[in-house]
Amino acid sequence: MVNEPGTLGRVAVAIGDVGANIVALEGFVVKGAFLEDDITVYCSSLDHQEEVRGAIEDLEGVEIIEWDDRVHSLHEGGKIAVVSKSVLEDMDDLAMLYTPGVARECRAIAADPARSFTHTIRKNTVAIVSDGTAVLGLGNIGPRAAMPVMEGKAQLFKHFGDVDAFPICIDTTDPDEIVSLVQKLEPTFGGINLEDIAAPQAFDIEERLAESMDIPVFHDDQHGTAIVVVAALINALKIVGKDIADIKLVTAGVGAAGIAVMKMVMALGATHIIGVDHAGVVHEGRKDLDSSKRWFAENTNPDKLEGSITDVIGGADVFIGLSAPNVLTVEDVRSMASDPIVFAMANPDPEIRPELIKGIAAVIATGRSDFPNQINNVLAFPGMFRGALDARARRITDGMKIATAHAIANVVGDDLHAEHIIPTVFDLRVAPAVAAAAKAAAIADGVCRDA
Amino acid sequence: MVNEPGTLGRVAVAIGDVGANIVALEGFVVKGAFLEDDITVYCSSLDHQEEVRGAIEDLEGVEIIEWDDRVHSLHEGGKIAVVSKSVLEDMDDLAMLYTPGVARECRAIAADPARSFTHTIRKNTVAIVSDGTAVLGLGNIGPRAAMPVMEGKAQLFKHFGDVDAFPICIDTTDPDEIVSLVQKLEPTFGGINLEDIAAPQAFDIEERLAESMDIPVFHDDQHGTAIVVVAALINALKIVGKDIADIKLVTAGVGAAGIAVMKMVMALGATHIIGVDHAGVVHEGRKDLDSSKRWFAENTNPDKLEGSITDVIGGADVFIGLSAPNVLTVEDVRSMASDPIVFAMANPDPEIRPELIKGIAAVIATGRSDFPNQINNVLAFPGMFRGALDARARRITDGMKIATAHAIANVVGDDLHAEHIIPTVFDLRVAPAVAAAAKAAAIADGVCRDA
Repeated sequence: MVNEPGTLGRVAVAIGDVGANIVALEGFVVKGAFLEDDITVYCSSLDHQEEVRGAIEDLEGVEIIEWDDRVHSLHEGGKIAVVSKSVLEDMDDLAMLYTPGVARECRAIAADPARSFTHTIRKNTVAIVSDGTAVLGLGNIGPRAAMPVMEGKAQLFKHFGDVDAFPICIDTTDPDEIVSLVQKLEPTFGGINLEDIAAPQAFDIEERLAESMDIPVFHDDQHGTAIVVVAALINALKIVGKDIADIKLVTAGVGAAGIAVMKMVMALGATHIIGVDHAGVVHEGRKDLDSSKRWFAENTNPDKLEGSITDVIGGADVFIGLSAPNVLTVEDVRSMASDPIVFAMANPDPEIRPELIKGIAAVIATGRSDFPNQINNVLAFPGMFRGALDARARRITDGMKIATAHAIANVVGDDLHAEHIIPTVFDLRVAPAVAAAAKAAAIADGVCRDA
Repeated sequence: MVNEPGTLGRVAVAIGDVGANIVALEGFVVKGAFLEDDITVYCSSLDHQEEVRGAIEDLEGVEIIEWDDRVHSLHEGGKIAVVSKSVLEDMDDLAMLYTPGVARECRAIAADPARSFTHTIRKNTVAIVSDGTAVLGLGNIGPRAAMPVMEGKAQLFKHFGDVDAFPICIDTTDPDEIVSLVQKLEPTFGGINLEDIAAPQAFDIEERLAESMDIPVFHDDQHGTAIVVVAALINALKIVGKDIADIKLVTAGVGAAGIAVMKMVMALGATHIIGVDHAGVVHEGRKDLDSSKRWFAENTNPDKLEGSITDVIGGADVFIGLSAPNVLTVEDVRSMASDPIVFAMANPDPEIRPELIKGIAAVIATGRSDFPNQINNVLAFPGMFRGALDARARRITDGMKIATAHAIANVVGDDLHAEHIIPTVFDLRVAPAVAAAAKAAAIADGVCRDA
């Protein structure tokens, strides 16, 4: 900027005029006739970024020397590191941590393999396994492009659960190969978190791994989502004073997450469920169903209805959407029973915009952080694995899932109201509560390794 | 201890009398008629530990309340952790490191897969892969019991090379399965360090991975050892004033490490090499040779000698042992050429005890830290991978191996003498010198990815 009074003001005004927020000003340096400054600006999209740049470059006496996208710069070099937990400063340290001393620990584990759960990183380490076939809403972008998500997940595991998690993004989409590879990694890890693997393969992979491995296996997209949705549903039903056994529930999206949610909802007593996918209502007569949707069709839709969502939503108490934008209309919601509960969790654009049904729906939740009641898996997986590892659980049981859903619901406590049915992501009470519930349920279910 | 003057003295004397060293006294607490104290004692073996315990327990008025083996307690819970490199404190951080912001980085990598080398942990992360079939001198103790070694190795990678390394101990010993599994991990890692895999499978596995993967693959037991042995040999030959092209070299141990050393020695010009294994001198006529020993037989032993080590060691300038204890006798060394060089690197007990040939051999090296001239792979692998990652090398070339051997040898510089032919493990000049040499050689050999 030219070193004249008012220049920075003109920059700030230009940025504000295009609707962006200045978050920070730093690195102020005077260089004779010029000033340099680092300005951090929040933009709402890539187009908005360009608009902000354009607005600044249009100013007289102002030039952008360097432009940096914070999301990309935060990813440079990766987001996690592997560090030593011990001091390594001299030959004595080396002789204990490495040769020759380490040989004694190796022999002790060889003599008693269960010791690998207490005297190696298995005690606290989880693999985050993905084949990159269903990453966020991006679809099949492959294992290389999936890495930033898995690294971010590892950061969340550490921050919320004090769990050491490491990404394992693998270059195959063949379920048999994935199962075989993950099984062979068992000596290294204390748990397996499956992530962003496309349905229906994901069901098969999780089932086979959970059955064959002696450590907890958890498909977060299914069970993490299910736990948090159910936690929110438990609290939403409290607000409208309805019993889960009595409700009519319509769900849009019968993928990995949708079916996992419905299984938990059924386990809690719901009997009247109708599912809808991109081809309409799911019923036994459809010929296009894969094995998991067929199971779903056989266990839901008691009146064997057909048609579209509009044909079945009438009188429903609860709508749960894990599908696509704008699947639900305002008229659909108006046709629901009194005090309807609408969870519109398609990301980033929900099944119906919350502002459209304000005053119509009694409780609204989405997957977004910019509306109340964000359904976010971060509430479940760090505490679930913390509890499973602490309990030395051999697997994740249905009891652990239900217990953790109740634990999350209970954290809300007396603060429960229609715009606060679920704790916020940064509520630090959640992970310890989830961990305690998971641990207690693992012990009750008798799935713990001897201490 | 009873709270009477002289009790601690009696304890100290008792410990000293059985030949152990007190390293630390701390946690002194008076509890009425008793004193409590934490005493750290160096013992030379497990038997010695028992002897020390017995000596203390035999004392009047002294009792051991708790006994703790430091090696085992250092391994409790594992030796490495996975940590976040970014601040994660609020929704803005989360929105950049995880959803929705991370999706932009994912899309950028999907559009340009090479970006995974700069914007994920691949930039600085190496897998330490083992099947646990040849761990230290312990043999086939399995992948669970191998973990402490791999975790220790990860600590060394970090400390000396600032490389993030993660253990991958796998539950199969089938070479095809190992190759296939490691290939599928390529999206996650920037390099592969193979470790403690038995020969001859290790050769095959390394060769197939190096050929098929687009990242550096390094079998440390072979090439790490070879680089450090050759570095030491270069300096030892300077001391005795001999040229490598003129020497007669006898090697005991023709396994993975031995053959890798010999290949490098040949590359540097040695022509007169004779190998000996447990069945005697290796020659083309033997029927019991696997493919790698057959290659060795065809390319060494020019006079087609047979017999035992004693039959061939006469007149040798250099002995290199990577075999078993007490393979070499004093008489064998006496029969060598003038100023013999003896590298007796069997672990923990060398091919000949150094004190037996003091004054007979001109230069002696071992694998042990309690004698001069310790041949330790730690001098090579952290710098090698640091350099390979910095250079964005696609593989480890022979040129990189030879350049790093010279780099290690050169660090000794003017301090070169018979008891200092190789830098010590904690010489912090080594890793940067090795890294610079590896990087320069990778560039010269044209194996670097475009920046």
